[in-house]
Amino acid sequence: MTATLETLFAARVREVTPPLFGAAGEPARPLISLAYGLADPALFPRAELMAAAAEVLAYEAADSLNYAMSYPGLTDQIVARLRAEGVDAQPEQVLVGYGSGQILALLPEIFVDPGDTVIIEGPSFLGAVRRFVQSGARLVTIPVDEYGMDVTALADTLRALAAEGRRPKFIYTIPTFHNPTGVTLTLERRRQLVALAAEYGAPVVEDDAYLDLRFTGESLPSLAALDQEGWVIRVGTYSKILAPGLRIGWVHARREIIDRLLMVKAEGTTGPFITRVVARYSADGRLEQHIAALRRHYATKCEVMAAAIRRHFPAEARFVMPAGGFFIWVRLPEGVSAGTLLNAARARGAEFLPGTACFAEPGHGDDAIRLAFSFQSSERIEQGIAAIGAAFADV
Amino acid sequence: MTATLETLFAARVREVTPPLFGAAGEPARPLISLAYGLADPALFPRAELMAAAAEVLAYEAADSLNYAMSYPGLTDQIVARLRAEGVDAQPEQVLVGYGSGQILALLPEIFVDPGDTVIIEGPSFLGAVRRFVQSGARLVTIPVDEYGMDVTALADTLRALAAEGRRPKFIYTIPTFHNPTGVTLTLERRRQLVALAAEYGAPVVEDDAYLDLRFTGESLPSLAALDQEGWVIRVGTYSKILAPGLRIGWVHARREIIDRLLMVKAEGTTGPFITRVVARYSADGRLEQHIAALRRHYATKCEVMAAAIRRHFPAEARFVMPAGGFFIWVRLPEGVSAGTLLNAARARGAEFLPGTACFAEPGHGDDAIRLAFSFQSSERIEQGIAAIGAAFADV
Repeated sequence: MTATLETLFAARVREVTPPLFGAAGEPARPLISLAYGLADPALFPRAELMAAAAEVLAYEAADSLNYAMSYPGLTDQIVARLRAEGVDAQPEQVLVGYGSGQILALLPEIFVDPGDTVIIEGPSFLGAVRRFVQSGARLVTIPVDEYGMDVTALADTLRALAAEGRRPKFIYTIPTFHNPTGVTLTLERRRQLVALAAEYGAPVVEDDAYLDLRFTGESLPSLAALDQEGWVIRVGTYSKILAPGLRIGWVHARREIIDRLLMVKAEGTTGPFITRVVARYSADGRLEQHIAALRRHYATKCEVMAAAIRRHFPAEARFVMPAGGFFIWVRLPEGVSAGTLLNAARARGAEFLPGTACFAEPGHGDDAIRLAFSFQSSERIEQGIAAIGAAFADV
Repeated sequence: MTATLETLFAARVREVTPPLFGAAGEPARPLISLAYGLADPALFPRAELMAAAAEVLAYEAADSLNYAMSYPGLTDQIVARLRAEGVDAQPEQVLVGYGSGQILALLPEIFVDPGDTVIIEGPSFLGAVRRFVQSGARLVTIPVDEYGMDVTALADTLRALAAEGRRPKFIYTIPTFHNPTGVTLTLERRRQLVALAAEYGAPVVEDDAYLDLRFTGESLPSLAALDQEGWVIRVGTYSKILAPGLRIGWVHARREIIDRLLMVKAEGTTGPFITRVVARYSADGRLEQHIAALRRHYATKCEVMAAAIRRHFPAEARFVMPAGGFFIWVRLPEGVSAGTLLNAARARGAEFLPGTACFAEPGHGDDAIRLAFSFQSSERIEQGIAAIGAAFADV
């Protein structure tokens, strides 16, 4: 070869970074994995999806199989759901993407030039955070307590950044049934967060993947519903309420943001076939009925896991019982390392996500673990928690 | 609002550019549009796709509906098809994307820093070329004649660029049944092009969307099949041989390129559900049988259009009869402007793509038009060509 390929690559990809999505979805088979927030396959509405696909192919083949835009009817359904929760949503403010992961990866592309500041929660969903880093963002982490993001700490940080002349490009938060901690931001903090966003002109990226999966208590307004000035970028997904493998998520934001997301969304709008299948499935109240079933089902599995933790873990292990979502976050007893416990748990046939995998900065999270009750059956949850509980004696 | 949003956007999206894909797929309804290369809906294998979707949901729901990677079995099918045409393909050198349009939009993201040189054909497929421009590429255009890209002009250009110390990031070509001209690069020119790529260390992006749709003559080896040194990046799609709305395309290239494409592919690998549906449909020789039917069908429509052009257009309008693909490119008689003719044709109820829409630089292509025989029925093709033929008298 007379010339090398390497010198041809653009600056942003000269160094190869490992892939960010996908591999996490493959738990090692022999283990009972409580590590990942996979959906429960027992609840996939296979027959109804089959019917939806058949109807699309029977009645909408010309529009769904040819070159065409994303199906506007799906956007209308998303708008209707947003309006039902109090957001003054408009169709032209919604963009459908291939999963909310795609939306979360495109947002830094439109906001971040190298060196820009992005505010995240600690702990958080690193699948999204790693994309912010890849775009060159400087991260600032705000702690999360049992009431959600520490908004007082956020106010201090915003003030300090402003004093340095730094305006964050956005604040990334998972306010409802937070990943990984399961906690929910209180109403008072929600109001404070939205007010801070407006005061500092800092968009809030509200990742509400778990919002619909409430087991107990009253719904709180989303940040988007509280926002009067358009600073909230609301990201949602069908992955938790229908099926991740269909790869459908969405974003609601100001039109200027939607226009720019479409510029960096390499493939244009999301496929006409898959968006029609999801819309057909979801019509006539079917999605809402399915969500009601999911809430009952996941609530039961959450209770099974919590009871198993109380039974098998040392009394010093503490957790906040989540009111919804996919995860229980357990603070380990003093002196127990999540990494060490993970090795012992794997030797006993179970695994979890160590807290270190939820912090962008090294040196945090070794005192906590994330346990997903979403994927495994109640029987396997019980067995997995028992195995992890036994592992405490090994470390 | 205390602060504006606009100053927050990253440099690359500060100015909004219009969306690049999608809108073209919506011909104005009352017209007979011969403008766009849509697939013929009469040939969508609806029942077989329905069966494939039902089988995936019946037998592979757990793997296709949850978080998972793109289906490896589809990659294996792509590799098998590439090997059958003589490419030494490996699965780890293939990436499946949401249409070849996505792949063509991601390639500049991994190769182009602002000011870099990209070589294109004139005329070409502007849907791809506009993405190169958006990444900041300086375009250099090589003319296309009835034997495909003018490889002698390319050699001169590469030499001149090298003298200036400029190495092109890639050369974009549609060698087989070219969009828009329908011509096919000769075997001799193919060999020359591959040799030039190796000599100058310039990757060739081979967009072979139409390769399988040959009506007459013998197949020629793809550039990828001739390439011994890994300079050819072969891009393919299921849009022309199955259905565009499924949004499945792919790329075969050196592993270093695949790794970087995955870095900029925001959503990770392509959805497990849709990739399994396409693989199930395509299995057991079904795709090859379908392609055989498509070849006969599109060949007939091409002949219908060619005969109609001979009957209705002025004798001075000239075209090269394509041996495959979706398009006939007609050179207009001296003094007839494509733009003027388009207005007259629309007034008579038909439309085409003016040649100007196929050149990146202004001032080219007003002497030619692209006519797509792919979408309309033979009857409508005849009516549309008659209407455009009548419009010549109006200009």
